[in-house]
Amino acid sequence: MKVAIIMGSASDADKMEACIHILKDFGAEVTVRALSAHRAHKALEECVNECNENGTDVIITAAGMAAALPGVVASMTVLPVIGVPLKAVAFDGLDALMSIVQMPSGVPVATVAINGGKNAAYLALQIMGIKYPKLSEKLKAFRKEQEDACLKTDQDIRERY
Amino acid sequence: MKVAIIMGSASDADKMEACIHILKDFGAEVTVRALSAHRAHKALEECVNECNENGTDVIITAAGMAAALPGVVASMTVLPVIGVPLKAVAFDGLDALMSIVQMPSGVPVATVAINGGKNAAYLALQIMGIKYPKLSEKLKAFRKEQEDACLKTDQDIRERY
Amino acid sequence: MKVAIIMGSASDADKMEACIHILKDFGAEVTVRALSAHRAHKALEECVNECNENGTDVIITAAGMAAALPGVVASMTVLPVIGVPLKAVAFDGLDALMSIVQMPSGVPVATVAINGGKNAAYLALQIMGIKYPKLSEKLKAFRKEQEDACLKTDQDIRERY
Amino acid sequence: MKVAIIMGSASDADKMEACIHILKDFGAEVTVRALSAHRAHKALEECVNECNENGTDVIITAAGMAAALPGVVASMTVLPVIGVPLKAVAFDGLDALMSIVQMPSGVPVATVAINGGKNAAYLALQIMGIKYPKLSEKLKAFRKEQEDACLKTDQDIRERY
Amino acid sequence: MKVAIIMGSASDADKMEACIHILKDFGAEVTVRALSAHRAHKALEECVNECNENGTDVIITAAGMAAALPGVVASMTVLPVIGVPLKAVAFDGLDALMSIVQMPSGVPVATVAINGGKNAAYLALQIMGIKYPKLSEKLKAFRKEQEDACLKTDQDIRERY
Amino acid sequence: MKVAIIMGSASDADKMEACIHILKDFGAEVTVRALSAHRAHKALEECVNECNENGTDVIITAAGMAAALPGVVASMTVLPVIGVPLKAVAFDGLDALMSIVQMPSGVPVATVAINGGKNAAYLALQIMGIKYPKLSEKLKAFRKEQEDACLKTDQDIRERY
Amino acid sequence: MKVAIIMGSASDADKMEACIHILKDFGAEVTVRALSAHRAHKALEECVNECNENGTDVIITAAGMAAALPGVVASMTVLPVIGVPLKAVAFDGLDALMSIVQMPSGVPVATVAINGGKNAAYLALQIMGIKYPKLSEKLKAFRKEQEDACLKTDQDIRERY
Amino acid sequence: MKVAIIMGSASDADKMEACIHILKDFGAEVTVRALSAHRAHKALEECVNECNENGTDVIITAAGMAAALPGVVASMTVLPVIGVPLKAVAFDGLDALMSIVQMPSGVPVATVAINGGKNAAYLALQIMGIKYPKLSEKLKAFRKEQEDACLKTDQDIRERY
Repeated sequence: MKVAIIMGSASDADKMEACIHILKDFGAEVTVRALSAHRAHKALEECVNECNENGTDVIITAAGMAAALPGVVASMTVLPVIGVPLKAVAFDGLDALMSIVQMPSGVPVATVAINGGKNAAYLALQIMGIKYPKLSEKLKAFRKEQEDACLKTDQDIRERY
Repeated sequence: MKVAIIMGSASDADKMEACIHILKDFGAEVTVRALSAHRAHKALEECVNECNENGTDVIITAAGMAAALPGVVASMTVLPVIGVPLKAVAFDGLDALMSIVQMPSGVPVATVAINGGKNAAYLALQIMGIKYPKLSEKLKAFRKEQEDACLKTDQDIRERY
Repeated sequence: MKVAIIMGSASDADKMEACIHILKDFGAEVTVRALSAHRAHKALEECVNECNENGTDVIITAAGMAAALPGVVASMTVLPVIGVPLKAVAFDGLDALMSIVQMPSGVPVATVAINGGKNAAYLALQIMGIKYPKLSEKLKAFRKEQEDACLKTDQDIRERY
Repeated sequence: MKVAIIMGSASDADKMEACIHILKDFGAEVTVRALSAHRAHKALEECVNECNENGTDVIITAAGMAAALPGVVASMTVLPVIGVPLKAVAFDGLDALMSIVQMPSGVPVATVAINGGKNAAYLALQIMGIKYPKLSEKLKAFRKEQEDACLKTDQDIRERY
Repeated sequence: MKVAIIMGSASDADKMEACIHILKDFGAEVTVRALSAHRAHKALEECVNECNENGTDVIITAAGMAAALPGVVASMTVLPVIGVPLKAVAFDGLDALMSIVQMPSGVPVATVAINGGKNAAYLALQIMGIKYPKLSEKLKAFRKEQEDACLKTDQDIRERY
Repeated sequence: MKVAIIMGSASDADKMEACIHILKDFGAEVTVRALSAHRAHKALEECVNECNENGTDVIITAAGMAAALPGVVASMTVLPVIGVPLKAVAFDGLDALMSIVQMPSGVPVATVAINGGKNAAYLALQIMGIKYPKLSEKLKAFRKEQEDACLKTDQDIRERY
Repeated sequence: MKVAIIMGSASDADKMEACIHILKDFGAEVTVRALSAHRAHKALEECVNECNENGTDVIITAAGMAAALPGVVASMTVLPVIGVPLKAVAFDGLDALMSIVQMPSGVPVATVAINGGKNAAYLALQIMGIKYPKLSEKLKAFRKEQEDACLKTDQDIRERY
Repeated sequence: MKVAIIMGSASDADKMEACIHILKDFGAEVTVRALSAHRAHKALEECVNECNENGTDVIITAAGMAAALPGVVASMTVLPVIGVPLKAVAFDGLDALMSIVQMPSGVPVATVAINGGKNAAYLALQIMGIKYPKLSEKLKAFRKEQEDACLKTDQDIRERY
């Protein structure tokens, strides 16, 4: 149960913190990298090749603006690649979303919401759940907790008004 | 190696034809359904519960406009759910993309491009590839074919000009 | 004269405060709930069924991002459902507006402005006004007050310059 | 059970045909008018005043581009006013949607989808349903028919693939 | 040389301050009003009728969101009407711009930039300049001053680097 | 009563036909030019200087895409300059609208709707109306005709349904 | 005077025809390639390395949708790289424009208009003009021709109306 | 190795600081000007003519809102002109980007990202690199430094998690 997280810049690390913690909480082995597709292409290729060899199950990528990283990674592997569009200085991240989601046929990127690091983690877990049945059970329990928390706050709201 | 495809309306079927064929070509068992989240909620719930029980690996959903279907399906399962935003009468499908990709934390939908039925298929295959190693090999061969076709057309272009 | 307000998350409560107060000021009986369509679907269904049985006149729903809640509620009732798109982290709420307003035929949601909790209240009141003639009179008086306040500030402006 | 439909221009009539037919099918008495807010303001005011006096339950308005009509009508009545943004030459109707949905506080317009004449009819019927219980029953039957039709096409789709 | 400024709400006054001062600096007689098209329609009509009678040359209007005011005023007069779209809570004022600029044929509104109160003043002055030749000369002098100021800052910049 | 129409390209002529005819119908003397701001700047400058000297009352400009023409003309004159954004290959003309409406302070362009050649003509006429009282009367008569036509089609619509 | 044109897909060739012809007309040696950044990365790298070695002056790239090609090429060379965003199925090419223009610092792409193949050629020529003075003279002559053609059509327009 | 930087307003100077420093660091001779296309057209023309005569290699322009400056400069020279769209009060600079990138055929502007002053500098350097081989070598060394810095932060990230 192995996940690699590759972000385009070290400055994106705080936006991916929650993603890392969720994955670790569910017991995944996590590798975190910061490799720009435009500035360190060779190292990126080595990194993805390693993933292809070392039993990594899912690669999570995160990038803003031109956001070429997820697509470039996707072109180097047949592992499922998740893309997290990051909000940069403008356009609320719509630019990154468009870049990441619109991949050419045959090279898909599983895109989540802008700054959606958390759901990138949950999606990675759900993907691995088809291989690791215990993980699938943990996810069901987590959903139940979510529901209970939701019912609890509903109770609070009903009482408040 | 089992995939369920659920679209919001039977009129979306032609947009998902290629998706179905790709999956079958790679040997996946495919079930196709047309169930509106707003008009046939009960049947949708039964359908997803069936998927949860019968060993389905991935659920592909497709919907336009309000595009609630992918999210509703995602809320009923911990299987990986892929969402295909469909272009309806306006906004080039950006409305559906926004609805599908922006899920609340803990209930992710793996979103592909607008009308991206083909990549939904390839993404489903890549996801299943982590469980079925032979599929993974087939996907690598497919990528090689894509590359070869690309080099062939490059050769044509070079000669044309 | 009974209104149910259902929001997607307890964190939306402050955006709906004014809505609640307006309804109460006009004498409506108000129930407030916080139930995510994606996390607490069963409780949501029970809640709407209750509305269907207990003489609720109008249901006001509020949600951001994927904003599936209003449509899901609308699919469970033939009571008039009002939808309030909430501004989340990005896109100024346009995403939620699109999700809420673009419902499939036969399952309408009466959409108001982004963060338009106040007008959701006034719309609910105007809807109930067709059934409760006294309410209709109160609304006319309110409009007159609005006009008078407007004329008063106009007077101030004229004098200021 | 009386509905007035006011559109901004006679050229919008075909976009509202379905709306008219649905309302009549459900037994509503329908008046149809074409009155520009900018070209025939006086006649518009008379028309709305008539609605205020003659027992009209709901006013449906439809307009494109600047789309001031729904708001102007809303300012002249406390009846529920439904607004249908019409797609004109550009922007896929987003301009009209914005104009119609963003009303000042106290003067709401219940907005439906762009070119959403059908749902304007259904919304009007659901609103009147809180006053006319038989209508409410008819709407429930209609929803059941929608569901059955949906299940029927689902059956077709399952068999086709 | 008479200009009326009508804004949709007294809260817009600060956005129109500069407009008022420019007009007064150039010797125009300025009346300032705050009249909502949706809340004080009768008073608005009286106000525009007054303009039609009292020799007003240009009417400047300013409004945000649904921004119906400029168009409603334009429909009541054949005086040139200038519209200033105001930035409200969302969409950077694009919504107001669209509402104001897209008037039906025969009822134009001369639209300036979002929050463009200053240019509304200059446009009003240029319009009046075709009637009052001295004003036209003053405007030419003003343009010369603008150019000189521009050349002065250019000089500063050249020296700074 | 003299109007100059300057468009950025001869290929825009058909979009401005109606504008020319309306102006001529109201008795204006019309000069039509096709001068790109980027390709024939010197000729453009001469053309505007001529307008400045020969008693032109209003300059109407029309341009698409980068749409610099209206602003460049505005910078060369203190006559009122009207800008018509033209819809080119993409973005429904929003790009041209933005370029034309967002002028720097002191150099306004009176912007009308995208492809709004007709309203450019009516706006020019309303502007000249403050100088030529007879024109103002003609415009009032035209508005009355518009209203009558509107009432006539309203009558047709009422009878049709 | 050597230019390489690299497009993402052979199907883009017709959109780049004019670009190729303009370059050849001005005497440039042109190589045309079709190499997807996602499907034929190795061949693309070889192609750019060749450009780096063989005296190529400018590289023109063209791509739609995710449009990673221009940026990937830019990361492999310090030659000036021009990017042409191509309009694909949706968003009028704005998605490609955003992907191409928003490069990380230090790896610029000189972006031209959507489907702006012609201007890509002219920009390449202007860039090479700083090295080849004769080319610069030819470009000046070309501009003069453009101006003359513009004045000719202006003459036609003046006579037509 | 001479670069002219022309911005539309002295208030844009801080957004272009980094651009100036990068150019100087690489040994370019830099002239900085602040000349509005709309307010100081004559001085702008003189400035560009000077560039045409004094051996300037590249002109960098920067402007916001209507952003006519880059295009106007481009129309006065066959030197390569780079355009930097500046973010003004609204639309995140998309308005300026559209104005600058969409030039008519034959008058290109090499557009970089919104507020992309740094990449304007690097693009200018890469353009000059085709003429000055030593500069080209320096740019390759700079790219290597970028890559090394990237690998260093990757190392940090790997160790942090």
